[in-house]
Amino acid sequence: MGKDERARSRVAIIGTGLIGASIGLRLCSLPNRSFEVVGIDRDPEQIRTAKKRGAVDREARSFEEALEGAGLVVVAVPILAGPRVLREMAPYLAPGAVVTDTFSTKNEVLSWAAEYLPEGVNFVGGHPMAGKEATGAAAAEATLFEGATWAIVPSPTASEAAVQTVVGMVEALGAYPAYFDAGEHDQLTAAISHLPLFLAVTLFRLVRDSPSWEDAALLAGPGFRDTTRLASGDPLLAHGIWRTNRQAIVHWLDRFTAQLRELRSLLADPEREEELGQLLTKTKLDRDVFIENPPRREPPAKGAEVPSTADALGQFIAGAMYQRLKEYTAKPPVIRADDPSLRRKLGIDDDD
Amino acid sequence: MGKDERARSRVAIIGTGLIGASIGLRLCSLPNRSFEVVGIDRDPEQIRTAKKRGAVDREARSFEEALEGAGLVVVAVPILAGPRVLREMAPYLAPGAVVTDTFSTKNEVLSWAAEYLPEGVNFVGGHPMAGKEATGAAAAEATLFEGATWAIVPSPTASEAAVQTVVGMVEALGAYPAYFDAGEHDQLTAAISHLPLFLAVTLFRLVRDSPSWEDAALLAGPGFRDTTRLASGDPLLAHGIWRTNRQAIVHWLDRFTAQLRELRSLLADPEREEELGQLLTKTKLDRDVFIENPPRREPPAKGAEVPSTADALGQFIAGAMYQRLKEYTAKPPVIRADDPSLRRKLGIDDDD
Repeated sequence: MGKDERARSRVAIIGTGLIGASIGLRLCSLPNRSFEVVGIDRDPEQIRTAKKRGAVDREARSFEEALEGAGLVVVAVPILAGPRVLREMAPYLAPGAVVTDTFSTKNEVLSWAAEYLPEGVNFVGGHPMAGKEATGAAAAEATLFEGATWAIVPSPTASEAAVQTVVGMVEALGAYPAYFDAGEHDQLTAAISHLPLFLAVTLFRLVRDSPSWEDAALLAGPGFRDTTRLASGDPLLAHGIWRTNRQAIVHWLDRFTAQLRELRSLLADPEREEELGQLLTKTKLDRDVFIENPPRREPPAKGAEVPSTADALGQFIAGAMYQRLKEYTAKPPVIRADDPSLRRKLGIDDDD
Repeated sequence: MGKDERARSRVAIIGTGLIGASIGLRLCSLPNRSFEVVGIDRDPEQIRTAKKRGAVDREARSFEEALEGAGLVVVAVPILAGPRVLREMAPYLAPGAVVTDTFSTKNEVLSWAAEYLPEGVNFVGGHPMAGKEATGAAAAEATLFEGATWAIVPSPTASEAAVQTVVGMVEALGAYPAYFDAGEHDQLTAAISHLPLFLAVTLFRLVRDSPSWEDAALLAGPGFRDTTRLASGDPLLAHGIWRTNRQAIVHWLDRFTAQLRELRSLLADPEREEELGQLLTKTKLDRDVFIENPPRREPPAKGAEVPSTADALGQFIAGAMYQRLKEYTAKPPVIRADDPSLRRKLGIDDDD
């Protein structure tokens, strides 16, 4: 591949910590890839590690250098740095570039994108539902996203080709794309991700601050460790989640408290033994079904077009991913491509 | 080994489900063991699987057959069956036999033992802090207890040799014995095991019963799965825990609710950002320290005597475990053997 082709087919990863470097590791490992991966990080250690581990082909020293000719830009910085990074990147983005992110919340990032990104740049929000406690490029894994759901939240102005580009990347990472609107995403993640995080923090603190901690810790088995695992996550990430999704978190925390109050009456009453037994049995069954048959949503197939190879963006994505996209068209989609709300979300005109 | 020696050196496992069969698998795999393992289970399928997998040498059809000449009896039935099983076993226990259990709570089982077991039989309660969601002999693993803490709660009348027999078994299973009194054990496990279980049930039910469950499930990643894992545990076990430790559970649930209320005020207030950041950072650090350096307590060494080989019980335990017990005497104990409260717990007379 010549220098010119490379320049047209470039992915820029902004922030090469755990998530950014894991994305890079996987993209760089794709066979016959027709694009270059450029990385940038404020922290010289992170980008050096990412480069050494093969998560980027090349290190950029400035946004100007990183973004020159980049068709796809992945912003994987801490969420609190989001507004600054989008603002500083903006002047260097190529016309028609696709920008995606990996932030845990989506309402705010869509408003930052609308405020800071120039017209003609396509913002398609993204959120991989994967991670681990360890942080930094040293902890990155090419398989981090394998089998995970990856929420796709296109901005209202993003083109269909831009959405397909991000979907193609997500699939190349081994994840399952699923479309959401920003408000829906933030409410749902408050319930299944942010509430569990703050419950883990509360449970750990309660027991840790108890005078009997030393003995309790001795008895703590895998149950306590798993239930409190999220309390060992990156505090900056938790902080950023709270800063950008406070109301939804408090809403779900209140719902949890109400539910806990009901359970408390049940637990305190020796006469309600049968009811408790039923609750425990039903909950085990429901959870087992969820674990054994986790829901999956395939990307829309028939309704969405494979990006044209005439298009520079389409070209670099299509190089590695065209085959996958073609395969989808053969698979029965789990949500129908003619679903009106999906078409609306994807910005597909119903007259197409 | 002749028939007579075998009869003197017999371990009986009452209930060959996940826990009983895992104990059997490990005991049967010990090199140069000088004892026989006999199993019994109400459910023909469980005992058949246990036998087939090598978790028992022999299947007994009645308590009489199972307990004949058994020096060590391990009761690993569901806790709700505890009173009946102890009562029905009682007439067939050999004088001087050591009886231990694997129930999740200890106050009630000590009172059942006092009520049903004949004089001269030594009851030493036990509780392995290990397990998994799957149940039954088919899910048993010889390594299930590897590295786990195993609470030891001797009855007030148990002999020191009996305590050492159970400690020897626990060590042979790869676990770490730790002494507790029954009330202390039940309070501590309410905090680190039963409260997390009921929080997991509440969290799972809350999200599962929400109208947006289908979309939420799509976004649920490893965090939600881990935080709710305990909700997939055996409902009968949870029921038994509740039945035998209701007050402690409600006590800890109330403490959790109070702590959650405090966090709620913090989360709802955008002005308390710094305080929240500190809480998140401190909690991560504390939990990381706990995970990296989990507390361990070695069994008491100098203060406790290795069982005499003249004693039938001592003989079969000493066969496999004498070497391990000797090793302890060389290791610095984490709690000093001259600790008065430990000596009291172990029933060691201070004038010895």
